[in-house]
Amino acid sequence: MTIESIIVDMAKKAREASIQMAKLEEADKNAALLKIAEKIEQEALFLQSENKKDLERAREMGLTDAMIDRLTLSDAVIKSMADGLRFVAGLNDPVGAVTGTWTRPNGLQISRVRIPLGVIGMIYESRPNVTVDAAGLCLKAGNAIILRGGSEALDSNQALAGIINKALKESGLPENAAQVVPVRDRDAVNILLKQEEYVDLIIPRGGEGLIRAVVENSKIPVLKHYKGVCHVFVDDSADFTMAEEICLNSKAHRPGVCNAMETLLVHKSVADKFLPGMAERFKQAGVELRGCEKTCAILSEASAAKEEDWPAEYLDLIVAVKIVDDIDDAINHISKYSSNHTESIVTSDYERSRKFTRQVDSSAVIVNASTRFNDGGELGLGAEIGISTSKLHAFGPMGLEELTTTKFVVLGSGQVRT
Amino acid sequence: MTIESIIVDMAKKAREASIQMAKLEEADKNAALLKIAEKIEQEALFLQSENKKDLERAREMGLTDAMIDRLTLSDAVIKSMADGLRFVAGLNDPVGAVTGTWTRPNGLQISRVRIPLGVIGMIYESRPNVTVDAAGLCLKAGNAIILRGGSEALDSNQALAGIINKALKESGLPENAAQVVPVRDRDAVNILLKQEEYVDLIIPRGGEGLIRAVVENSKIPVLKHYKGVCHVFVDDSADFTMAEEICLNSKAHRPGVCNAMETLLVHKSVADKFLPGMAERFKQAGVELRGCEKTCAILSEASAAKEEDWPAEYLDLIVAVKIVDDIDDAINHISKYSSNHTESIVTSDYERSRKFTRQVDSSAVIVNASTRFNDGGELGLGAEIGISTSKLHAFGPMGLEELTTTKFVVLGSGQVRT
Repeated sequence: MTIESIIVDMAKKAREASIQMAKLEEADKNAALLKIAEKIEQEALFLQSENKKDLERAREMGLTDAMIDRLTLSDAVIKSMADGLRFVAGLNDPVGAVTGTWTRPNGLQISRVRIPLGVIGMIYESRPNVTVDAAGLCLKAGNAIILRGGSEALDSNQALAGIINKALKESGLPENAAQVVPVRDRDAVNILLKQEEYVDLIIPRGGEGLIRAVVENSKIPVLKHYKGVCHVFVDDSADFTMAEEICLNSKAHRPGVCNAMETLLVHKSVADKFLPGMAERFKQAGVELRGCEKTCAILSEASAAKEEDWPAEYLDLIVAVKIVDDIDDAINHISKYSSNHTESIVTSDYERSRKFTRQVDSSAVIVNASTRFNDGGELGLGAEIGISTSKLHAFGPMGLEELTTTKFVVLGSGQVRT
Repeated sequence: MTIESIIVDMAKKAREASIQMAKLEEADKNAALLKIAEKIEQEALFLQSENKKDLERAREMGLTDAMIDRLTLSDAVIKSMADGLRFVAGLNDPVGAVTGTWTRPNGLQISRVRIPLGVIGMIYESRPNVTVDAAGLCLKAGNAIILRGGSEALDSNQALAGIINKALKESGLPENAAQVVPVRDRDAVNILLKQEEYVDLIIPRGGEGLIRAVVENSKIPVLKHYKGVCHVFVDDSADFTMAEEICLNSKAHRPGVCNAMETLLVHKSVADKFLPGMAERFKQAGVELRGCEKTCAILSEASAAKEEDWPAEYLDLIVAVKIVDDIDDAINHISKYSSNHTESIVTSDYERSRKFTRQVDSSAVIVNASTRFNDGGELGLGAEIGISTSKLHAFGPMGLEELTTTKFVVLGSGQVRT
């Protein structure tokens, strides 16, 4: 078989499976998720022996320790995959929920009812646990999923897919509802991106290069974010202790993730009072400072920020610091450089909190809390499959609900249009 | 200026205008819409003299009478554009609506708040009234819009844009919030489709060829439907009088639109009783019948349907008729041939009505009413800018709400993530 025929065949089978998936009751989907969790734990040794093939190949190819760590199916990772499935089984099924209902003057009763999206294509790098996490969420929402993980994880992913398929079959669900692309060839991705007849949504997760390539080539709608250039603005009315904790947490709690702060904006009238203490906290946490001219005049330890620092996503213990004239200046800076991901203000002023939440155009706008809260679990969505900075369909974290859409159900008694 | 620089410049200006639009209060937007309506009526003679240039060119190019009719800005069309704007001014502003709010165990208060999408690119054919209708809806939802109408309507569209811009300016709104692409060259569309940095959504309206070309070339999300192949299934429990009225209305009320019925499915156990009377009604309305083998055995006036009749969108007084074994057979036929637009069942059986609404995967699934009701106004959305059969963001008619998205607003008191 050619790669094209393999992918087209997978997409057709996924479409057929999605029709069956959409009809299922919640209890059937939950039972299947619990069965997958059980089998993953039972088959831990098999999974680890298949994973070893990927790890050996990775070492031969000279992958870094960090990459090998992400690739490893340790006992802890296996337990967390199984626990994740059990958690998703416990979440409410969004399918069938009525999001609105009203009656028209002619007596027609209109409802909007949640339905699965259909077939989702997931394109991601390294971590084989994403295979299980993404499959769990998509299946719970009544979708079929085609998974294309990193080529370095193929043996692990195929082993996981084998277990998932077996569990689906034993549970009476369509086994093609979750399929792993079985070839390493990069053409497979571009062929998948053309199957708009069978695939409803593509979710890419990975570096900006991967995501841009997906958007460039896809005929299917793509939900994605390129990067997270998140800001915290410390207003002159801020409580300094609160502001320090929020900035430190936003930057240093997990610097390599998309909701970490990359730029700190400080109101000019408190900069000389706030920044020295903040800089001391950053220093203790090993954070490097890159400041605007005024910042450097206050903080001798800051190096001079260049123009390219303002739109930079460091994903590292580095923070750009800029002193702004006021909240409008802060909002203008954010409007120019932000990635529409997450922005936070620290303030005790009511009108400014309103202005910031109204005017900042990001998927999560936060008052007096860390940027790290822009995450599906933390916002109360239960779990997430990714964060979107595209405004269509889902703007922000995507949980189960964002893996569904709504249709109109219209109940009449013989009405015709006049 | 090159075409590229013209389009990029428009897109940047639209982006800037959209930032201003997003901050506006409802009253300011309504005042601007009323001002546009007033000016359109005041400038009727100017509009008609500009329209005359398009009409003369159209006659020279040998356009059909139907096309020239669509292109004409008659007194009635001008009045309906102005009335449409006044109607939209009276609709509720979706911006700022809170669609959900909850509190997390750590005290964070999370809300989902409606915000404008940003910049919308509208690509359409002929009718210059679409310029005003689309601009009105997009502006009310707080967006900026770039309008690319048919090249044969350019003088009319530019005259309308001039009036809109003047009214926006006089109302204190950004005049670039509605712009008409000022060149006929087709490259303009392809350049617009690449401006993903500035444009959030593309809505194409027109023939399947136009829409496919837009999807093929766009890097921006596209909301569209290719076609409407709508079905009515007459169950054996149907009230025949009701079924006749619904089928006749679905087919013949306005055969050239996307929510008209194209295929009639009839339960085998009532086909010989139902079809002769139905055929008589169709005959009176001038509807041509193309039937499956069993249908032709009952109706001598039906010609034999070919395989290509089942997925056909006739947009004409033609209907394909198929006799099916039962509701499952009907749903399978729909699943295979429908365009996911609108399907209706006529039944008096409770379980079958549930099965049909649950299992049919279309943007509107209707029980005992005409397919013609899948329309934003008829479903109670107030108005619509188009109907989407893509499942992302909006599945079905797109009203004001579908021209917005939601962001998360998070209110804290110093929370950090641990």
